[in-house]
Amino acid sequence: MYRYKITFAYDGSGFAGFQIQPHKRTIEQTLKIAVNKIAKNPTPPLHVIGSGRTDAGVHALNQVAHFDCPFELSNESMRKALNSLLPRDILVKKAEQVAPDFHARYDTHSKRYRYRVAQGEFVDPFKRFYTSHYKYPVDVAKMNQAAQDLIGEHDFTSFVASGSQAKSNVRRIDDASVVRDDVNDEIIFEFEGNGFLYNQVRIMVATLLEIGNGQRPVDDIPRILAAHDRQAARMTAPAAGLYLVSVNYDETNVKTVDDFNKTE
Amino acid sequence: MYRYKITFAYDGSGFAGFQIQPHKRTIEQTLKIAVNKIAKNPTPPLHVIGSGRTDAGVHALNQVAHFDCPFELSNESMRKALNSLLPRDILVKKAEQVAPDFHARYDTHSKRYRYRVAQGEFVDPFKRFYTSHYKYPVDVAKMNQAAQDLIGEHDFTSFVASGSQAKSNVRRIDDASVVRDDVNDEIIFEFEGNGFLYNQVRIMVATLLEIGNGQRPVDDIPRILAAHDRQAARMTAPAAGLYLVSVNYDETNVKTVDDFNKTE
Repeated sequence: MYRYKITFAYDGSGFAGFQIQPHKRTIEQTLKIAVNKIAKNPTPPLHVIGSGRTDAGVHALNQVAHFDCPFELSNESMRKALNSLLPRDILVKKAEQVAPDFHARYDTHSKRYRYRVAQGEFVDPFKRFYTSHYKYPVDVAKMNQAAQDLIGEHDFTSFVASGSQAKSNVRRIDDASVVRDDVNDEIIFEFEGNGFLYNQVRIMVATLLEIGNGQRPVDDIPRILAAHDRQAARMTAPAAGLYLVSVNYDETNVKTVDDFNKTE
Repeated sequence: MYRYKITFAYDGSGFAGFQIQPHKRTIEQTLKIAVNKIAKNPTPPLHVIGSGRTDAGVHALNQVAHFDCPFELSNESMRKALNSLLPRDILVKKAEQVAPDFHARYDTHSKRYRYRVAQGEFVDPFKRFYTSHYKYPVDVAKMNQAAQDLIGEHDFTSFVASGSQAKSNVRRIDDASVVRDDVNDEIIFEFEGNGFLYNQVRIMVATLLEIGNGQRPVDDIPRILAAHDRQAARMTAPAAGLYLVSVNYDETNVKTVDDFNKTE
C-alpha cells in the first residue's frame, strides 16, 4: 500500500460536518467515495483519516487527511484524480506520497483556526454561511488584550461544550489575536495551538465578544479559566464563521517517501 | 393604498430566479409572502413588481421592486418589518414610500451589471456560487478595448438567447469596462445600459473572454453586432458570476411622497 497525505479546502455550508454519519452528506464520506473509486473499489473499502473533525457548517482552508492506495500514482496525478471525482465544495490543493507510518491525526503538531465576525447593522446575504454577525460595537484592542490570557497551557474545561469526548481538557495555545478587517467590516480572531476541544474556539470567540462589548471586564479570562466550569463562559459563537486555516506537522517527524526509501 | 419602493440584495444561489414559478423558490414569491404578511394577508393578495427578472443563480446587490400597502408605515418600519420576515438570503437595504404612479419596471432609466470571473487553476470552493471560472490566460486590456465597441445604441440580436420575449433587440449601452482584480485574482466586467436582453450580459462576457484568450480578434464585436445572428457570438457565461449592481431611475420622473402631497 502507498500512503498519501492530502491538503484540502472545503466550504462546510453544504456538509453535516467532517465525520461519517448515516444518511448525511459529510466530508469524510465524500472523500472516501472518491478515494475508493480511484483505488477501483477494493474490499474492504479504504478509509480516509482526517487530522480531526469539524462541525456542520465549519469551513477549512487547509485540512489534512491520509489514506492508503493499493497502487502508486504521482502526487500530481493523485491530486487531479481526486479533484475530478470530488464535488466543487471540496478542493484538494496538494497530494503527497508519505511514509507508511505518517498519521494525519496522531502526528499533528499544531492547528490554526480563524473566526470571522461581520459587523454592520444587517447580515449580508452573501456572508450568511461564511461569517457570523455581531452588530454591537466592540473594542478590538480590549479583545486582543484579553485573548493574550488564553496563551499557554491551560485546563480549558470552562471552554468545552458538553458533547466533548476528550480525556483531558488541558491544551496549549501558542498564538491568539483579534484584529479588525476594515475593508470587509469584519473582526478576525485567530488561534494556534496543539489542539482544540469541542466548540472551544467558538466559546472563546463568544467570550471575547462579550469582553469587547463591555459585558465582561478585560481581565475576565484568567477567572473563567480558573473556574473549570462551562457555566463561567456562557455563549458559543455560530459555526458559520469558523475556518480551519492549517494543520501543522513537525517536519522532522514526518517521514517523506525519500526518507522512507533510504531506510528500507 | 400606499406605494413603497424597496431596494434589496439577494444571493441568487438558493433561488430558481426572480419570477414566480409553480413549486419553485423564487425571489418574487418570497417577497410576495412577506409583503402580504405585513398587509395582514388581504384578498386578493398584493403583488410585488420587480424592475426586471434575474435568472436562477444570478445575484443582486441593489435590485428594486414596488408594491402597495393598504396602510401607511414609516420607511424604517417597513424596511425592518420586511427584513424580520424575509430569509437571510434576501436583505432589504432601503424602503421608501413613493408616489402611487411610480413603477419599478416602467420607470427604469438604466441598469448596471457586474460579472466576476475567477482565474487560477482551480475553482475555489468558496466562490463556486459567486464567480464563474476561467483558468486560461486573458489579455484584460484587449477585452476592455473590445468592450468599448459595445457602447452605443445597437441591435443586440447576436447577443440574445433564444428564450427572449423582447419585441425589439435594440438597446443602448452607456458604459462597459473590463478590469483585473489582483487581490482576488478575478476579472471584473461591468456594463451599464438602458436595458439588457435575455442572457445578453452573459453572452457578451463569453465573447469578450474569447477575445481576451486570442480565439477572436480584438475588433470582432462590430462584425458580430452587424451579423444580427446569435450564432455569431456562440458561448454564454454561467449564471453564478452575474450581479445586478443597480437599477437607476430618472430622479425628475420619480415622484416622491412630498411631490405627491404637494399636488394633492
